[in-house]
Amino acid sequence: MFTCTGYAAEAADKRLTPFTFERRDPGPTDVAIEILFCGVCHSDLHTARGEWGNSLYPCVPGHEIVGRVTAVGGKVSRFKVGDVAAVGCMVDSCRTCPSCKAGLEQYCDNGFTATYNSEDKKSGGHTFGGYASHIVVDHDFVLKVPTNLDLAAAAPLLCAGITTWSPLRHWKAGPGKKVGIVGLGGLGHMGVKLAHALGAHVVLFTTSPGKIADGKRLGADEVVLSKDEAAMAAHAESFDLIVDAVAADHDINAYLGLVKRDGTLVQVGAPEKPLAVNVFSVIWKRRNFAGSLIGGIAETQEMLDFCGRHGITSDIEMIPIQKIDEAYARMLESDVKYRFVVDMASLKTAA
Amino acid sequence: MFTCTGYAAEAADKRLTPFTFERRDPGPTDVAIEILFCGVCHSDLHTARGEWGNSLYPCVPGHEIVGRVTAVGGKVSRFKVGDVAAVGCMVDSCRTCPSCKAGLEQYCDNGFTATYNSEDKKSGGHTFGGYASHIVVDHDFVLKVPTNLDLAAAAPLLCAGITTWSPLRHWKAGPGKKVGIVGLGGLGHMGVKLAHALGAHVVLFTTSPGKIADGKRLGADEVVLSKDEAAMAAHAESFDLIVDAVAADHDINAYLGLVKRDGTLVQVGAPEKPLAVNVFSVIWKRRNFAGSLIGGIAETQEMLDFCGRHGITSDIEMIPIQKIDEAYARMLESDVKYRFVVDMASLKTAA
Repeated sequence: MFTCTGYAAEAADKRLTPFTFERRDPGPTDVAIEILFCGVCHSDLHTARGEWGNSLYPCVPGHEIVGRVTAVGGKVSRFKVGDVAAVGCMVDSCRTCPSCKAGLEQYCDNGFTATYNSEDKKSGGHTFGGYASHIVVDHDFVLKVPTNLDLAAAAPLLCAGITTWSPLRHWKAGPGKKVGIVGLGGLGHMGVKLAHALGAHVVLFTTSPGKIADGKRLGADEVVLSKDEAAMAAHAESFDLIVDAVAADHDINAYLGLVKRDGTLVQVGAPEKPLAVNVFSVIWKRRNFAGSLIGGIAETQEMLDFCGRHGITSDIEMIPIQKIDEAYARMLESDVKYRFVVDMASLKTAA
Repeated sequence: MFTCTGYAAEAADKRLTPFTFERRDPGPTDVAIEILFCGVCHSDLHTARGEWGNSLYPCVPGHEIVGRVTAVGGKVSRFKVGDVAAVGCMVDSCRTCPSCKAGLEQYCDNGFTATYNSEDKKSGGHTFGGYASHIVVDHDFVLKVPTNLDLAAAAPLLCAGITTWSPLRHWKAGPGKKVGIVGLGGLGHMGVKLAHALGAHVVLFTTSPGKIADGKRLGADEVVLSKDEAAMAAHAESFDLIVDAVAADHDINAYLGLVKRDGTLVQVGAPEKPLAVNVFSVIWKRRNFAGSLIGGIAETQEMLDFCGRHGITSDIEMIPIQKIDEAYARMLESDVKYRFVVDMASLKTAA
């Protein structure tokens, strides 16, 4: 075991504060990583504050991790000391169920091991995430980052990127397809960039007139204000795919009505309360209302490689770890364009 | 024009009573049919009573029609006088949109002409359905009934049959697939029979202990009482497809949780109020919540031919037209096994 520093919430009602803890020494298949940057995801906030009811404390959030390899186990061939490496939302899975065999570890029948807040089957206790100096992860769950990408801006690809990439690929976004993205936040802005780079005709839906110009800059061919009924009606029954990244309650039927026959609206934002789905919204046009959860390891690497070829990263605002609670407060106000990333060098600075 | 007799509701709050009206003389592509039997669908009741807010009066319901051809137009080659013929929920569509070209007239971009309660683009006014002595329909929307089937019991195939057949086929129910049917009513009992004949492993979900034996007789391999939480849990994440035929509000998440990764729950029953879909029910396992509307003409003929080969018809209770209001009252109590069919010979009897 070796000692790490990080930031943790000690309870649901506590701010994140400096925290010292142990990680396992790297085993034969492990990669030890010094964390350089960690993106800040809404899930971090939900978990730190116990809003999903399943939080384990102390809670070290963070699952958009980019760093440098400091040690590798004897059986590791894909990474060597000094390499840049990345870790996303998962650090292990059963490897044997049909979903794992299909490269869809996020749907592991036995439950994947999340990067934080999961039972740690290797070291006991529960897993600690990326708001930390180091992490040790089995090599099968460590990703390579294209060398041309800015490392800080690449960090959000590990969650926000793959969460939108996976449904775009599964439902075949590409040339000749009309793809909607609902909501321009951390997920939505990656959805716009990726769908555009995949060659789809991209329409962004937002409630904010102030985001129209930004939506177009990020790659949207059209931006529709969702409160503009005439603009919405003009797109009726025309989308092959809509990726809905809104995590608050909203009128899902307004978007289902924009999907063409046999098309899909896939929810990647996760509102706490159930959405009211009018059955006729799916019966007419045989529409699908689906969901999608992050993405598998192979498709995460595929996405990173694609981003390398297309020069795609997240639009970020860098913060020191000492400002994490302030960042959470601003996230709740949607006051970030479009992802906070923690510069982990700040851990070495006095608080 | 020629004179028909039938039964109509003159207003939402009126009982169905004898009604005399005109139909067009058969044109070059028309088939004139003397109606022998007409099944009684929940939609008939909803429309007669104005419950969907779009009813046109006088309203002659009925879209599960089997009869005998009395005349054909000069361009009709598939039917001759004396043939048995059937008509379902549609009597025309635009024929030119992508859905019509794909044989999916039920999703016609310009709106199909429903057998009743649609604008009648050929004769003016609105369409009158099968609670009538005769009907005149373009030959492209007239179906052939296998000669080995009981004609009265075949009538419900035209709506209840195709409404379950279409999603079973679209989502590939067959050998090696586990298929759930929710609700044992008019639609559900056809779903059980058809899914069984297609070779799927069929599990019926019902709230009624009294329907267990009947479910198995109709072809279910297993029957689960949906209030039995342990029995439900035993089927978690195991279904390729669930066809939900329940038209009342119910806990859709309890069924979504039974669907395996990438599987589909398809709603064919149409509850008036939106269903509360927990987003996590679809995000986990990348499930699809879909809908399906009746079926196209080609697949309706495919279904009838399949039913002919497998000897499948509906379980019915025959009534004279004079008892239609009583039948509606019993339908609302689910007191029918499993479809009322009107013997149209009763029209000639004094009321």
